[in-house]
Amino acid sequence: MNTIMERLVALRTEMARQQIDAWVIPSSDPHQSEYVADHWTGRAWASGFTGSAGTLIVLKDQAGLWTDGRYFIQGKQQLEGTGIELMREGNPGVPTMGEWLVEQLDAESTIGFDGQTMSVAAARRLEKSIEGASFQITCDKDLLAQAWTDRPAMPAEPVFSHAERYVGKTRDDKFAAVREAMAQKKVDHLLISTLDDIAWLFNLRGSDVACNPVFLAYALFSREKVSLYVNDSRIEADALAALTASGVELRAYDAIAEDLANLPADSQLQLPPATTSCWLKNAVPASVNIVEAASPSTLHKAIKNTKEIDFMRECHRRDGAAIVRLSRWLDEITPTGRVNEVELDNKLQAIRSEDPLYKGPSFPTIAGYAANGAICHYRAEEKTCLTIKPKGLLLVDSGGQYPDGTTDITRTFSCGELTDEEKRDYTLVLKSHINLATTRFKKGTYGIQLDMMARQPMWALGMDYNHGTGHGVGYFLNVHEGPHSIGAKWVDTPLEPGMLVTNEPGMYRDNKHGVRIENIMRVSEDITTEFGEFYKLEHLTLAPIDTRPLERSLLSEQELQWLNSYHQDVREALSPLLSGDDLAWLQKVTAAI
Amino acid sequence: MNTIMERLVALRTEMARQQIDAWVIPSSDPHQSEYVADHWTGRAWASGFTGSAGTLIVLKDQAGLWTDGRYFIQGKQQLEGTGIELMREGNPGVPTMGEWLVEQLDAESTIGFDGQTMSVAAARRLEKSIEGASFQITCDKDLLAQAWTDRPAMPAEPVFSHAERYVGKTRDDKFAAVREAMAQKKVDHLLISTLDDIAWLFNLRGSDVACNPVFLAYALFSREKVSLYVNDSRIEADALAALTASGVELRAYDAIAEDLANLPADSQLQLPPATTSCWLKNAVPASVNIVEAASPSTLHKAIKNTKEIDFMRECHRRDGAAIVRLSRWLDEITPTGRVNEVELDNKLQAIRSEDPLYKGPSFPTIAGYAANGAICHYRAEEKTCLTIKPKGLLLVDSGGQYPDGTTDITRTFSCGELTDEEKRDYTLVLKSHINLATTRFKKGTYGIQLDMMARQPMWALGMDYNHGTGHGVGYFLNVHEGPHSIGAKWVDTPLEPGMLVTNEPGMYRDNKHGVRIENIMRVSEDITTEFGEFYKLEHLTLAPIDTRPLERSLLSEQELQWLNSYHQDVREALSPLLSGDDLAWLQKVTAAI
Repeated sequence: MNTIMERLVALRTEMARQQIDAWVIPSSDPHQSEYVADHWTGRAWASGFTGSAGTLIVLKDQAGLWTDGRYFIQGKQQLEGTGIELMREGNPGVPTMGEWLVEQLDAESTIGFDGQTMSVAAARRLEKSIEGASFQITCDKDLLAQAWTDRPAMPAEPVFSHAERYVGKTRDDKFAAVREAMAQKKVDHLLISTLDDIAWLFNLRGSDVACNPVFLAYALFSREKVSLYVNDSRIEADALAALTASGVELRAYDAIAEDLANLPADSQLQLPPATTSCWLKNAVPASVNIVEAASPSTLHKAIKNTKEIDFMRECHRRDGAAIVRLSRWLDEITPTGRVNEVELDNKLQAIRSEDPLYKGPSFPTIAGYAANGAICHYRAEEKTCLTIKPKGLLLVDSGGQYPDGTTDITRTFSCGELTDEEKRDYTLVLKSHINLATTRFKKGTYGIQLDMMARQPMWALGMDYNHGTGHGVGYFLNVHEGPHSIGAKWVDTPLEPGMLVTNEPGMYRDNKHGVRIENIMRVSEDITTEFGEFYKLEHLTLAPIDTRPLERSLLSEQELQWLNSYHQDVREALSPLLSGDDLAWLQKVTAAI
Repeated sequence: MNTIMERLVALRTEMARQQIDAWVIPSSDPHQSEYVADHWTGRAWASGFTGSAGTLIVLKDQAGLWTDGRYFIQGKQQLEGTGIELMREGNPGVPTMGEWLVEQLDAESTIGFDGQTMSVAAARRLEKSIEGASFQITCDKDLLAQAWTDRPAMPAEPVFSHAERYVGKTRDDKFAAVREAMAQKKVDHLLISTLDDIAWLFNLRGSDVACNPVFLAYALFSREKVSLYVNDSRIEADALAALTASGVELRAYDAIAEDLANLPADSQLQLPPATTSCWLKNAVPASVNIVEAASPSTLHKAIKNTKEIDFMRECHRRDGAAIVRLSRWLDEITPTGRVNEVELDNKLQAIRSEDPLYKGPSFPTIAGYAANGAICHYRAEEKTCLTIKPKGLLLVDSGGQYPDGTTDITRTFSCGELTDEEKRDYTLVLKSHINLATTRFKKGTYGIQLDMMARQPMWALGMDYNHGTGHGVGYFLNVHEGPHSIGAKWVDTPLEPGMLVTNEPGMYRDNKHGVRIENIMRVSEDITTEFGEFYKLEHLTLAPIDTRPLERSLLSEQELQWLNSYHQDVREALSPLLSGDDLAWLQKVTAAI
């Protein structure tokens, strides 16, 4: 009997004891974070599946794990032998969670989940999906508290100030903007659960979650008061003094539910349904009027001001120089056949670490050689990773955290001889990248419209990639940041000047290769005519794009011009930071073609 | 004192008598129709504004009319001297209806509207917009019943069968599909208010609304019964017999509210919130569980089957031949300077009427010469219309109703000498049209994504048009048909094979000229690859596109090829229907360039 089966036994024992017929474990923490601290990795603990998205449902005698296309291969591998069925969301014939629950459970069954790990919106979707069935739902228990005996403790890393030099706006200015939005919406209180919003608003950072410089906390704004719920022993002295100076009331992390329970009757409380746990919503008394709406801080944070943008440019120059040094090293080492994917990542970390401002990766590096490049969320492991041979393509998607910005860059490198298919795929991805990068768009344009620009060159050939085209990026914060994005799914936030968004089309051939070319772009004003205001995308990321895999006959004159002009920008921006062989290499690879 | 002011006095007298402080008159009828019978033109009666979209709010001592960008010019003209303020929706500083009501009214004021003319969704938006203000809302009165003394009667035109030869699917098959959808959704009853859905489902047609071959009715589906609410004296004998054969229960039009009131307790009633009047929703007892969702018939109707498509092709050939004859006549008459916009429309109607199957226009023709072409919803009037001179551009947007289809075509004609701007604008509109027409798109693509393809050539130059790119089209039904469309607004219905949609980008220069080129397209399957299923658009509309205004240097090789290939299709399809000078003219204007 393997470990997963033992864990499921422990969980089922607890289910039986507490009379629960179905236990649901989503991927999230009480803050609806994308990446979570170990304490909240219950889904991975109980199933063995470590992907960032997926929901496990355990019944008395069976279990299913629902995940999306990014994780079908990984899910199949990791669930093997556990008895847990992989439910490939969206595939024909695969039931939704609700359909499956209705099929499998008897009437009057009890479905349970930890209300801390499920947002108001997610719980509502689950309830809606089993509408009509006579199930009970319980969300005030945490079965893992008993079943998971060696569960990691809650994180309690130090909380520190975001250095004042780099801060884009004072805490007081940010508070004032939130209060203005509250006044417009006529609400008395605003609950914020999202960790990056809190870090940004209070100009604090932490390291409770790997790669994300955030700390576990809640914030509650009232018209005259702002309370931060975090255990104050964790806060560094200067940060504590600064918070006190701004009049922030410090409350224990656990006190949030109690404070919500004590809100005055008939007051208006705004809470974001997508990021507030249903446990916290349930703590609010019925006499308080709940206004469901996103926190204004999410949009404020997304729109970077010129100070932040200027720092981001500097940070991207240094990060770009690190990518140049890695690339030159790769060019030298690849022909020797002596380096593998993990060693490559180690080298990248070593180079980035030479920058005294480097704080660590912004996400786990994806270094996928050949067929591994086709696994979108591949993570190389020491024992199983591939050695890079002098042929084929190597995809490297990585990023760094710096006090003056967060980076996220993908480059795909030629390792030597390439097939025609590899060359055509690479060239096509660059065409898609350029098509989006050069799009002028009208004020009010949404990400789903821009997504079309990246996909159209591929769709014209009956090709596509199975992921979004771009996501927002934080400022020394989460590498995935809302509320906007570029993708084929509808997101109700138009692109606005000051927003950052990645441009990362790709092409993946199972068991062969993967290509992706990613820059971070800034939305900025372009022209205003009698027909309206128009915006454009400007690149922040500065690093050479490998020209060796290009099939030149497939590129138009304008596309070649774009590439040469981009390389000129790269050369001018990075040359001052490089010397010797690195500088010579930069000049060579960015020469006009 | 003008007529409008007298009418407002009559309305305000009634408001005072019934103790109502604000009376709201939207544009709609009890079926939420886009075009309404005269009986329901209360907003035009009370304000003088005849646009298809707009809401009038009358207070004791002031009044406002809210409309969108299409109608700012017309609204300004028609409201002049009435004392009614034009509220340009979306313009900076213009209050929404809710904001204005909150500003103008005292606490405890009563806002009223005729619940028959406001959908559940619209009433909810209005309520939401005045949330927090302590107003009373009343929706069970119809003040116009007293105030509008010479109000036109409800229409009562004959209701006839859609000739069996042309019907795409039997009534029984359509009913079965609706019942299957009801079973899947687990509802016992389905209320349908939309007139085109009802006409389509019952294979009946009428003429209660100009240009729209529909009749006033409701339909109520139950698991075992289907009831049609229409006064049966209007139904032609053969149609009546056919309905009886299909087991349709006929009920009086007015009986719907009573029947809803008598639905069994605990049953499930599906109703579409966007197209059901709040008056009818209020008729449903609280013991009935209302499921708000669009009617399945709306999607069924939108997806044309091959029989319908084949007939549509035939109808478009005949309609295209009529356009050719008009165009040749125009070419002859224009140099004489003897014809005006109204006469042109009369000629078009005369030519179309030679087709024994022609039933009338599918919407009022827009024939706009020179500056009139820039007014998107222009309607030429005998006294004020322009004479067509031998220079500049003429925009003609027209359509016909036939038992085998509904047409909608826009062509812009060169009348002689053109300015460089006219030529560039015309060429740009064609480029936009072609860019959309040639787009291959993946299964699951929404109209907002396709919209980008039509706009991108314009946005690249800082240009744009202020209307949607395309709408669905009925089959001997409404020329505007949902649920899909192509536009910059999010619509939650992906394009599916069998749907029809117009492709009609345009370019408008105030006081100068307007250009629009419109074809009806059919969504059809294209290719399936390892990356998914892809669709394409195929033209149904067949009529020459004037090549004289083209600035050839702005067209790419592919665009020229598309044009020549389209003209070859037009020539081959229409030649058999034309002879003599018309045929010679067709061959000349469709020759490859």
